[in-house]
Amino acid sequence: MEYKLVIVVRWDLKLSAGKMAAQVAHAAVNCAFAAKKRSPDWFDRWYAEGQRKVVVKVPTLDDLYEVKSNAEALRLVTSLITDAGMTEIPPNTVTCLGVGPGPADLLDKVTGHLKLV
Amino acid sequence: MEYKLVIVVRWDLKLSAGKMAAQVAHAAVNCAFAAKKRSPDWFDRWYAEGQRKVVVKVPTLDDLYEVKSNAEALRLVTSLITDAGMTEIPPNTVTCLGVGPGPADLLDKVTGHLKLV
Repeated sequence: MEYKLVIVVRWDLKLSAGKMAAQVAHAAVNCAFAAKKRSPDWFDRWYAEGQRKVVVKVPTLDDLYEVKSNAEALRLVTSLITDAGMTEIPPNTVTCLGVGPGPADLLDKVTGHLKLV
Repeated sequence: MEYKLVIVVRWDLKLSAGKMAAQVAHAAVNCAFAAKKRSPDWFDRWYAEGQRKVVVKVPTLDDLYEVKSNAEALRLVTSLITDAGMTEIPPNTVTCLGVGPGPADLLDKVTGHLKLV
């Protein structure tokens, strides 16, 4: 079985590539640590497979919350990232959502329809 | 004191924003776990401060190795990321380098001259 961590980015914010990378990294670190505690078996498999990460996008904040809600219903780890907003965007702007790591087929149920960044 | 994690990206590869974000996230996760073991005090402070991450760029692979060598001389955690290369770039291409987390002034000695992405 394959495992992956999916990071969903709000595309309406038009973040710069560097800003987006930092936000995605933030989500990845949070999800990795949370999964190590909450679902250590999935974490270990994901890590052993080389920590696959996939970055996808949604058009609005509402879409991000919808993915979060669907992921939580499947008991997947989620981490919503809010930026301190010292550059580019207003303080406390929600920028992205990490989902997983977990089995790829489970992740696909909530993120499989989203376009790659 | 401030703490940060710096991720240095090879700019000559002209990675897409999504690909770059995934590589940066990979470096961030590796560095975070490595620092938690090797320099738990720095890790804890960095984490408590909100895990500041900065993404900078170098023009070539040689520049990346130079940063790595300088960082190791200061006993900073480093993590060199090699991509499996299924998309965009050839297999086993070195894409980026994570340095830290550690005290910002120490990080600045080896990455302070590099431009933000």
